[in-house]
Amino acid sequence: MKRIASRDNPLFKSLRKLTQASQARREAGLSVLEGVHLCQAYLQWRGLPRHAVFDARRLEGDRGSAEVMALRDEIPADRQVWLDGNLIDDLEHVQAGQGVVFVVETPAPPLPERVAESCVLLDRVQDPGNVGSILRTCAAAGVRHVFLSDETAFAWSPKVLRSGQGAHFSLTIHERVDLPALLPRLDLPLVATTLEDAVGLYRAELPRQCAWVFGNEGQGVRAELQAAAALRVRIPQEPAAESLNVGAAVAVCLFEHRRRFAPD
Amino acid sequence: MKRIASRDNPLFKSLRKLTQASQARREAGLSVLEGVHLCQAYLQWRGLPRHAVFDARRLEGDRGSAEVMALRDEIPADRQVWLDGNLIDDLEHVQAGQGVVFVVETPAPPLPERVAESCVLLDRVQDPGNVGSILRTCAAAGVRHVFLSDETAFAWSPKVLRSGQGAHFSLTIHERVDLPALLPRLDLPLVATTLEDAVGLYRAELPRQCAWVFGNEGQGVRAELQAAAALRVRIPQEPAAESLNVGAAVAVCLFEHRRRFAPD
Repeated sequence: MKRIASRDNPLFKSLRKLTQASQARREAGLSVLEGVHLCQAYLQWRGLPRHAVFDARRLEGDRGSAEVMALRDEIPADRQVWLDGNLIDDLEHVQAGQGVVFVVETPAPPLPERVAESCVLLDRVQDPGNVGSILRTCAAAGVRHVFLSDETAFAWSPKVLRSGQGAHFSLTIHERVDLPALLPRLDLPLVATTLEDAVGLYRAELPRQCAWVFGNEGQGVRAELQAAAALRVRIPQEPAAESLNVGAAVAVCLFEHRRRFAPD
Repeated sequence: MKRIASRDNPLFKSLRKLTQASQARREAGLSVLEGVHLCQAYLQWRGLPRHAVFDARRLEGDRGSAEVMALRDEIPADRQVWLDGNLIDDLEHVQAGQGVVFVVETPAPPLPERVAESCVLLDRVQDPGNVGSILRTCAAAGVRHVFLSDETAFAWSPKVLRSGQGAHFSLTIHERVDLPALLPRLDLPLVATTLEDAVGLYRAELPRQCAWVFGNEGQGVRAELQAAAALRVRIPQEPAAESLNVGAAVAVCLFEHRRRFAPD
């Protein structure tokens, strides 16, 4: 176990940089998970982190929460970093810090040659809260593969991780994907949500396996992808109202799909 | 039309205070709408604002966007306030300021004696983005009455307004409602979303008119309201996954309800 008492410690400096700068995380290929829930979910789905960073004050004399203690007990000593004093406060963004931060390798799965299982494509969805909530919806609906275009919020950013609540770890997430170039690899029909020239979701014959594409908060799905869709659906709604938030639209579509094929 | 060139102008000072402090807005019973879209939606649904505040630089010589010009043309001169120089920058939170801000009276509708039309109750939903997205979902699904408990994010805050995208103005929103005390006024069944002791949403016999209650992001619906529900439903999902974000859960439930009774 490494124990750090000084802000000048090289490992501490690199940890601080990782938590503060997205560029540093990208260059190192690392992500930072803050709080008990995300760390537990990572252990459950993915295994050990590169570093498990603890607030030493909460571990000594077993004064920490039972959850933090349990996390500590699962991590081999050589991956534990204990921070003395208030050093942990330099690392954590979350307001109510819970005294534990994991540093993990950012998954970068290779693009599959063929895609034959239901998946979700996000075209320039920019709000981190929306992207996190959509990942959570995918995991709950049983969609396991997600392809994010350039200009979609970076999935492994702290805000998206927080909003995803651990959904990231059960999914295969491809980032910065050239979506039009992905289309020839799809062995299943593309279904686009659009407001015009579309069939009502509840009348649509949804394929059992399909690739859903959802678009930017303001502009929707780009025309090129709409044109390539085998099916364009719209969610029937009050005529005078604004359309749904994209996170809500994803939930309605994926759960309508689930209702038909796995209603419980 | 009032034209203001100085930060010492009393009207400007009161406007600045309104945009900066939620307490000032509450005490004055006023809300601040930022950006073209919210202002347009207010005009469409509710009528004239108390003040329509413009960035004078964008109006002179008709150099503003067509949308801002159109807004100006709809507002009587005595409700227009033009701000010189960069005064508008003191007022706006939105990063890409659009040069228009409305000050409007915060609706405070009296609690109805009886509730007989489908409605949504939110029990301590704390995230402003969630509350805004839920209001938008209600408007799109055709649910027109919303009751927010104490500890639910304040609907007329800038963040909730932004996330609601104008849905506020087509809804009747009651805030700081004592939800248990509301129950005797309901002439329709209460339907609670819970994770335990609940029937699957797709098997449930949903009443045509009902009062939905959704709960806090972490703790769900409080036990007292769960116990009072005529029907408890859960959204069938992957067993190992986290439950849905509350905004996604509202969308799934309200649109499953709409699918049955107004499928389009």
